Amino acid sequence: MNREDELATVGELGKRRGFFFGTAEAYGGVGGFFTYGPEGAALKRNLEDAWRDRFVTRPGHMEVSAPDVLPEPVFEASGHLDGFDDMIVDCPACGTAHRADHLVEDHPDSEYEDAEALGIERVAELLGELGVDCPDCGASLANESVEEFNLMFETDIGPGSSQPGYLRPETAQGIFVEFPRLKEYARGQLPFGVAQVGAAYRNEIAPRRGLIRVRAFTQAELEHFIDPETDEPPLDDVADVELPLYSAAAQEAGGGVETRTVREAVDEGVVAPWIAYYLGIARDWYASVGVDMDRFRYRQHRSGERAHYAADCWDAETEIAGDWVEVTGFAIRGDYDLTNHAAASGEEFTVFKQYDEPKTVERATVDPDMATLGPEYGDAAAEIAAALERLAARDPDAFEAATVPVEADGETYEVDTDLANFGVETVTESGEHITPHVIEPSFGIGRLFYTILAHNYHEDEVDGEPRRYLSLPAELAPTFACVAPLVTDDALVEQAESVREELRAAGFAVDYDESGSIGRRYRRQDEIGTPVCVTIDHETVEQAEHDTATVTLRDRDTTAQARVPVADLLEHLTALRAGTEFAALFDRDGVEQV
Amino acid sequence: MNREDELATVGELGKRRGFFFGTAEAYGGVGGFFTYGPEGAALKRNLEDAWRDRFVTRPGHMEVSAPDVLPEPVFEASGHLDGFDDMIVDCPACGTAHRADHLVEDHPDSEYEDAEALGIERVAELLGELGVDCPDCGASLANESVEEFNLMFETDIGPGSSQPGYLRPETAQGIFVEFPRLKEYARGQLPFGVAQVGAAYRNEIAPRRGLIRVRAFTQAELEHFIDPETDEPPLDDVADVELPLYSAAAQEAGGGVETRTVREAVDEGVVAPWIAYYLGIARDWYASVGVDMDRFRYRQHRSGERAHYAADCWDAETEIAGDWVEVTGFAIRGDYDLTNHAAASGEEFTVFKQYDEPKTVERATVDPDMATLGPEYGDAAAEIAAALERLAARDPDAFEAATVPVEADGETYEVDTDLANFGVETVTESGEHITPHVIEPSFGIGRLFYTILAHNYHEDEVDGEPRRYLSLPAELAPTFACVAPLVTDDALVEQAESVREELRAAGFAVDYDESGSIGRRYRRQDEIGTPVCVTIDHETVEQAEHDTATVTLRDRDTTAQARVPVADLLEHLTALRAGTEFAALFDRDGVEQV
Repeated sequence: MNREDELATVGELGKRRGFFFGTAEAYGGVGGFFTYGPEGAALKRNLEDAWRDRFVTRPGHMEVSAPDVLPEPVFEASGHLDGFDDMIVDCPACGTAHRADHLVEDHPDSEYEDAEALGIERVAELLGELGVDCPDCGASLANESVEEFNLMFETDIGPGSSQPGYLRPETAQGIFVEFPRLKEYARGQLPFGVAQVGAAYRNEIAPRRGLIRVRAFTQAELEHFIDPETDEPPLDDVADVELPLYSAAAQEAGGGVETRTVREAVDEGVVAPWIAYYLGIARDWYASVGVDMDRFRYRQHRSGERAHYAADCWDAETEIAGDWVEVTGFAIRGDYDLTNHAAASGEEFTVFKQYDEPKTVERATVDPDMATLGPEYGDAAAEIAAALERLAARDPDAFEAATVPVEADGETYEVDTDLANFGVETVTESGEHITPHVIEPSFGIGRLFYTILAHNYHEDEVDGEPRRYLSLPAELAPTFACVAPLVTDDALVEQAESVREELRAAGFAVDYDESGSIGRRYRRQDEIGTPVCVTIDHETVEQAEHDTATVTLRDRDTTAQARVPVADLLEHLTALRAGTEFAALFDRDGVEQV
Repeated sequence: MNREDELATVGELGKRRGFFFGTAEAYGGVGGFFTYGPEGAALKRNLEDAWRDRFVTRPGHMEVSAPDVLPEPVFEASGHLDGFDDMIVDCPACGTAHRADHLVEDHPDSEYEDAEALGIERVAELLGELGVDCPDCGASLANESVEEFNLMFETDIGPGSSQPGYLRPETAQGIFVEFPRLKEYARGQLPFGVAQVGAAYRNEIAPRRGLIRVRAFTQAELEHFIDPETDEPPLDDVADVELPLYSAAAQEAGGGVETRTVREAVDEGVVAPWIAYYLGIARDWYASVGVDMDRFRYRQHRSGERAHYAADCWDAETEIAGDWVEVTGFAIRGDYDLTNHAAASGEEFTVFKQYDEPKTVERATVDPDMATLGPEYGDAAAEIAAALERLAARDPDAFEAATVPVEADGETYEVDTDLANFGVETVTESGEHITPHVIEPSFGIGRLFYTILAHNYHEDEVDGEPRRYLSLPAELAPTFACVAPLVTDDALVEQAESVREELRAAGFAVDYDESGSIGRRYRRQDEIGTPVCVTIDHETVEQAEHDTATVTLRDRDTTAQARVPVADLLEHLTALRAGTEFAALFDRDGVEQV
């Protein structure tokens, strides 16, 4: 199909068939908020389950569920309170707020692809230099001020003397802040992973493009805590997976995507090993959930583009309607978050790393003579004693002089070295406390959902009539089977209802439809991606009297049909849901094709 | 166990084993917010899946997923902006905010069990009459003012000229507000049900008692839209289910719980049919997820206690630590919500109900003579014409007089009847637009989770040693199996890791543990409710060389063991997860018990 039509087609299908639509449109809607309808909510849940199976259950990681609202100190420490801003410019004429950096990028004379990296002053200048006008009313924005706008939604927790809280801008902080407990559940052993699937919120200045830039979205994040000195990823598991890589160097040199295996990418130093491992795992997973690998790439962040916490970052990007859309970020967050939460909270965010053999080390000690320090320094004495201890740990050589300089209460004191009772003792240490580093694959479930709809939408012809269908993988299909009586006849309906109940009791998501021609009912199911239709006809009813009832199964993508005994239905559908191809299943079984 | 200890025991187990704990305790925590740890998040998700299977998949209902934040007009219409308040009193000495009605109820001289129903003025008086003091600092609250405090968390959507939004206090409004679309997905046919499982928020004045009164919680709500004139519940499906009923009448007469079957409860007029149907369905479901039916009852709301939208309401209550806790509300919401959203939004919140046969009806019409009305009434003419049309629909007899009175622009006009061109026409109508009524079972997932931990916690003795275990139903268990090598030996570990991988690939939540004695490892799994332990020993390794490896399965509740071939492991575990008893499985199969 024409790719310019893709957004319109997916949006229309989303509304008409209940995948997604703007929230509260009866009240005129609210920008950036979407509701997943019956088919969409099921597809999204199935996608989350597929993610959980691959990134949590199979590797044996943990998953937690923290509240969407967290108190202010968490985001002070994480850097979001200060650093999670977009550049806003208000139109002086119509009052509409715009993202200043996007206006600069979108201007026809602009040569900038990532204006945010230029900084707020330069973007303000460029509004004037380029002569940017308000896209809504045409007024000049040349002399308007550009401000930082924090993207977190704020609220008040509790009545009266309430405390500020924020809707989390990423699920990750709900994990980091609980690290002291989580490491206990991991029995103190690195590496371990903790995942969370849930809502996150960004109060976007200008939400746009369907599910791409929204204000409430779903993330599936895995925080893999590792010992950066010793833990290595099991690269052998994914060594031969081919990665379409668009490196920062290639971007800057005007190059393109180059394909490397995971092993090659690591050996050539293009991708760090832990990131390469996850790019490999994710590559195969994307394919399994229906992302078109011809419309997929991994793009490395350029240096000015990275989040405040990231040492390196690669995005998985999918092509939708001609644009590349970030669907996952793979970041090395290092010890940024744990270190900051430790400093801000005063708690330990470390694990104890046992040495292979105990180490004997020399440790400088002081034992300050408080009987002398107290009278001499008064209130400052205790802090001077503490400063002496810190100095001994940091710079034992300083105690070779006659006096040592220490800071206390903002003043510098020269303290007689004798009063410190400096010494060196030999101790045996069995290990040390280290702050783990974090490898983070962070998936945007809504954007991936949107990609899957776009990449699996097809139009073809069946019996000379145009039809539209969604080639969703069976494990994702929101409705797995539709049960339909060929005609609305009491005996057929009764038989169909009995089949429907049996399938639902076995946990299949089953639709039932008796309205309209059978062809029209098939089309309806094709459009929502239902893999199988089960049709009950007069023959079924006649056979049922002899307990030999058969039904017709119809395959969505090929429209092939097979007649199978009702007694085998659960077994066949279970195989189809597990990913067996319709043709393979019935060729192998030698079931009559109709 | 001693029931007073129950809250402490569940809370301690929750923290130590990772079921739930206060959020952000590294920063001192934040009242009323909890994080589900690795075991808790999995248990909660399994509980939600069990709910979904019974209340969505099996009955073939729809499920949607709306954002947690909704714009203000939604809550203006729903009544939450005005009516969703608690009574707050601030201590003049220490500044702590309290729920005034709870202070009245908790006072030793109080005879009130439901002070909220008394109204705010009477509660303020009672603070003085009873001599209520601040529970925190002891200062008198006798003359303090009692205010309404709205329980919704507020935030601002968008920058600059932002609009207010609220964290939803119930998931239901995210369904009601989308009714015009949802009915299309239901092809316009009543009855149909729409569910949602998700977060809801109440900015409680005084959160307390673990997971019982929290500020962020999970609801599983089903809104069943029915035609109140014709749709009846399939009572035969649940006719014989026994309900422990504590009716409003029994509460007022000082009576107790009386057991009735669903059929009896309906026939005796104690419970309305639709509510009785859901009480029956839910009764069996609660038992299946591990609620102790000796600590369970259905309690009817007394008239002063009902929510602003409810015509009748029954609560499912479970007993925890001697208190009865509401875990589900079953409400008849009538057409309250749809009618209000229709009025506020101007959209249609109705379905078209086809008559069995078309009806011929007489309809009064007017065709105002604008050529005369215009010059005579000027600007008011158009509104007068519209008022004439409304009058004709409402009171056709009025047109028998020489003049008819109409209101326009706040004034009353006597209009010459001839100018209206009144007439009566005969039309055939095929049906009518009706507003569906709503039956709502609303489950509090967190409270049910808490109940399940409390009701399934046991202490017993094994081999003379005390142990603690959680007798969770297999389908809910957060960890389904633990794989353990008997000793830490390379060959055993390798074999155990191979078994672990096979089970994880098959989708089982599998823990792996090689640390400490096997007895200690069993105890650890018992405490988190893991139904099965799989132990690999030297015999396993020897047998593996001949492809006849066997492992030991251990049952959590009975500690019984059975030795089974590795080749049969998946089949056995699948049967156990589906609810087959350990003893039944291995007696039947005649597997060697060890």
